[in-house]
Amino acid sequence: MRIAFIGLGIMGMPMAKHLVAAGHTVSGYNRSRAKVDEFAAEGGTAAASVAEAVTGAEVVVTMLPNHPEVEGVVLGQGGVLESAEPGALLIDMSTIRPETSIAIAEAAGEKGIRVLDAPVSGGEAGAKQAALSIMVGGEEADFTAARPVFEALGKTIVHVGPHGAGQVVKAANQLVVGGIYGLVSEAIVLMEASGVDAKTGLDVLAGGLAANRILDLKRESMVARQFQPGFRIDLHHKDMGIATDAARQADVSLPMTGLVAQLLAAARAMGHGSLDHSALLKVVEQLSGRA
Amino acid sequence: MRIAFIGLGIMGMPMAKHLVAAGHTVSGYNRSRAKVDEFAAEGGTAAASVAEAVTGAEVVVTMLPNHPEVEGVVLGQGGVLESAEPGALLIDMSTIRPETSIAIAEAAGEKGIRVLDAPVSGGEAGAKQAALSIMVGGEEADFTAARPVFEALGKTIVHVGPHGAGQVVKAANQLVVGGIYGLVSEAIVLMEASGVDAKTGLDVLAGGLAANRILDLKRESMVARQFQPGFRIDLHHKDMGIATDAARQADVSLPMTGLVAQLLAAARAMGHGSLDHSALLKVVEQLSGRA
Amino acid sequence: MRIAFIGLGIMGMPMAKHLVAAGHTVSGYNRSRAKVDEFAAEGGTAAASVAEAVTGAEVVVTMLPNHPEVEGVVLGQGGVLESAEPGALLIDMSTIRPETSIAIAEAAGEKGIRVLDAPVSGGEAGAKQAALSIMVGGEEADFTAARPVFEALGKTIVHVGPHGAGQVVKAANQLVVGGIYGLVSEAIVLMEASGVDAKTGLDVLAGGLAANRILDLKRESMVARQFQPGFRIDLHHKDMGIATDAARQADVSLPMTGLVAQLLAAARAMGHGSLDHSALLKVVEQLSGRA
Amino acid sequence: MRIAFIGLGIMGMPMAKHLVAAGHTVSGYNRSRAKVDEFAAEGGTAAASVAEAVTGAEVVVTMLPNHPEVEGVVLGQGGVLESAEPGALLIDMSTIRPETSIAIAEAAGEKGIRVLDAPVSGGEAGAKQAALSIMVGGEEADFTAARPVFEALGKTIVHVGPHGAGQVVKAANQLVVGGIYGLVSEAIVLMEASGVDAKTGLDVLAGGLAANRILDLKRESMVARQFQPGFRIDLHHKDMGIATDAARQADVSLPMTGLVAQLLAAARAMGHGSLDHSALLKVVEQLSGRA
Repeated sequence: MRIAFIGLGIMGMPMAKHLVAAGHTVSGYNRSRAKVDEFAAEGGTAAASVAEAVTGAEVVVTMLPNHPEVEGVVLGQGGVLESAEPGALLIDMSTIRPETSIAIAEAAGEKGIRVLDAPVSGGEAGAKQAALSIMVGGEEADFTAARPVFEALGKTIVHVGPHGAGQVVKAANQLVVGGIYGLVSEAIVLMEASGVDAKTGLDVLAGGLAANRILDLKRESMVARQFQPGFRIDLHHKDMGIATDAARQADVSLPMTGLVAQLLAAARAMGHGSLDHSALLKVVEQLSGRA
Repeated sequence: MRIAFIGLGIMGMPMAKHLVAAGHTVSGYNRSRAKVDEFAAEGGTAAASVAEAVTGAEVVVTMLPNHPEVEGVVLGQGGVLESAEPGALLIDMSTIRPETSIAIAEAAGEKGIRVLDAPVSGGEAGAKQAALSIMVGGEEADFTAARPVFEALGKTIVHVGPHGAGQVVKAANQLVVGGIYGLVSEAIVLMEASGVDAKTGLDVLAGGLAANRILDLKRESMVARQFQPGFRIDLHHKDMGIATDAARQADVSLPMTGLVAQLLAAARAMGHGSLDHSALLKVVEQLSGRA
Repeated sequence: MRIAFIGLGIMGMPMAKHLVAAGHTVSGYNRSRAKVDEFAAEGGTAAASVAEAVTGAEVVVTMLPNHPEVEGVVLGQGGVLESAEPGALLIDMSTIRPETSIAIAEAAGEKGIRVLDAPVSGGEAGAKQAALSIMVGGEEADFTAARPVFEALGKTIVHVGPHGAGQVVKAANQLVVGGIYGLVSEAIVLMEASGVDAKTGLDVLAGGLAANRILDLKRESMVARQFQPGFRIDLHHKDMGIATDAARQADVSLPMTGLVAQLLAAARAMGHGSLDHSALLKVVEQLSGRA
Repeated sequence: MRIAFIGLGIMGMPMAKHLVAAGHTVSGYNRSRAKVDEFAAEGGTAAASVAEAVTGAEVVVTMLPNHPEVEGVVLGQGGVLESAEPGALLIDMSTIRPETSIAIAEAAGEKGIRVLDAPVSGGEAGAKQAALSIMVGGEEADFTAARPVFEALGKTIVHVGPHGAGQVVKAANQLVVGGIYGLVSEAIVLMEASGVDAKTGLDVLAGGLAANRILDLKRESMVARQFQPGFRIDLHHKDMGIATDAARQADVSLPMTGLVAQLLAAARAMGHGSLDHSALLKVVEQLSGRA
């Protein structure tokens, strides 16, 4: 396929390269020219603008930091909707608010452009290994058409519902992950302050109903206070903002999510934004006078 | 061994029977005589009082609802400390506040009676199948001495620290479990209110970093609103009281635990006390006007 | 002065009329023509568009529901910034996110248009009686220039800081008010469930350190479950969204605000959006199985 | 009247002296003999034990730190119930759990001893100036009989309901006070982090619906970070434990109270236990990386 790829960052670059490797013709654009050159050196085509990248593409993939960037690139002057041809398929793989995904689908629909929201989880490692989980919202037919793209990038690929549904599932994922970090952190602090060896205690928890992947992957590093990322607090903080926005949009009350969002905000405000999200432990420690 | 078993309830009865089946001489006592008779019919010895059960026992096991009952049976008139012989080993398998376990160990120590706190997880099913997880606090030598008892009752048997440590680990387990129920409930409500099929969404979560045993075991029943226990809200509510007491005793601040305790209190206050703890979902639904 | 007034709603209409009564020449615009006609019948000038209202005005007042409307009216095509003359003063009295107020001030500054953010409290009654509290952000000189406008509308008129500061103070006000409603609600539910007459108990609270204006004004109506507005749950819910957005923008963690926001979201989700904000009591009752 | 006064601490000593000054015959007891001697030097009678103080008294007043002390002094060996004569009136002015007040009333009733729970607010200053607020639970006739005692000690004296009701109202008072400190703290942090002068902002809040006594009395000291007590964090932390216990006993869910309890636990865990309760601000600052 002829693919335009907008956003050659930490996630986007390895994803775009996988598409090249899968045999697609990929025109890449990024605000910083150095990234575009790097991509061209690996078999991609350098584009000097969004418009240049998008013109003639069957599929446009966007992988951008947050909703303002997506709105700018897609809806703005010289953006995707101005340059893409009717019938093109826009796959936004950014993690953004569901309401923006829905608004973009509506605006694109008026121009005959089809849209999928397809946020991913799995982080930089998943992007590099083409092992992402991809949660897709939009029309079934468009999901089917996009399969070759998704299969070059991920392993778990699920069509979860209409426009915005991919973002909702991603938000649900992030609120559960953030919340489990908070709970495990509280378990650690309670045990340590009570004179219990936290590693031994967490081993027991990992063998019962409290078992979870974060305990499996991170309990040793958390007890050892090793917080190199992984997935940064700053990004998880952004995602909790999406979760609370999504809750507001869906007119639901999510008290635990509201609290997790504030705890991640604390982690960031305390200066831990570039640490792994497991560093939420540092907030709980601070609250208990143990840091 | 000659074992006294005090508390032949839903958990205690199958546990006491396993000890009989393992070849021990077990004298059983319960406030309601019918339970004692049932136990005697299965090879146990009927005791008419705590004192009668305990006299001559090498090991005394208590399995009681909460700390007032344990205090009554152990410290009260005609209780374990009055009747047990110096050198006897008291294994309290009730789930109670760590501070009570510590106080009992101190009081027993003055009489030459050794004590372990050994709360369990795994519920009625685990008790029946001798598949409990047992978290043990106390002296290493006493833990070793108690091994034959524990091995007749459980699979995961861990010495986690000094007196009270078993209770602390159990409290940590319960706060994580209760919290994950809350998070999964919020994920379900967010997805359903956003028009996403919750079952499909949870399948995706179960494949990534949000994976946890509750998703594995309960996501279908939660989405189907099937809440037959399992482990009752009332019991989990009691356990959250223990977790917040333990936090207070350890002088730590656990904001998520504080909130989970209030959500479980809501589940109970709303009349769901006898449902499975996964019915925490009903509280989140109610808060979102969806029940 | 020649004043344009955009937004003749429940708040805006009486405010615009006060400006007419104070002797100003006021050109009014609203999306619904009926409101414009009503305003013209009271001595105002009817405008058929934002542009028509704004052209030739020294001062432009906007009183709109939320930030998208303000962005549309001010920054959009045919909006205030296109039509107002350099040197004009835009006073946005809407309650919106501080970051939007700041963005508007920047955009306006590029066109030589001065801006104040001036949200109000006091509700419909305050608007009708020209007794609003007005919290003003922006330049001191512009505040001074706007005094005649503010004095026709309110009683407490305070310049609280730079652009956006008015919105920040309004947000702070709303988080405190919403939170006190939650606390008083919890006090009522605790007392009633404990068999204490809530009215008597609140009388005691109102005489000590817990005293607050909400107890003064609303304790009788809350105990009697009379929730006619006043200030609607829907509006307070909107304002809590502003407070959490402002916290995010300021990079602070506000756990109580996060929880109050979810409780107000619950009040709305449960269908109480058009009741007075004191109806937060209904959420606390529901959580305790008492409604 | 012949009065026994048990507990001559920071609160109890000035209270007992007021009773002497009002013409009563007061026999005082305290664990530390120095306090008893100090009291005797001011016109009281020194008692060497609870039994000695209580024997022959018409009224017994207890003013003790928490429920274990009250249980010990009242229910323990050599305690009030063993020594007081039938018909005596026990007034427990300690702040304790409602359930303990109820249990004591039941135990005393069996011995023909009447009981009131009568916790106070107003702190050390209120005790010294005989200006306490007194919240009384128990029988109306006993309340009437106790009036001369209360009138020597306080200004606001209210019979709020049956046994335990005084404690419930005190708990309600403390949860509202603690919560308002949290809310005002969040308002301050939000304003300061947003570049708004907090003092100016709080002045505006104090003029509107957010007005409350804490803003009146403490906003200047809070903004100036002056936290000399006043009422210590440690004591308010104890009282939040009573509030959450009371909620549990009444089978209600109080989410804000649950969070306030954890924030006060944080203040204590961070080492601020001996500061004024307005130092809750330090926790909110810490969470926002501003301390």
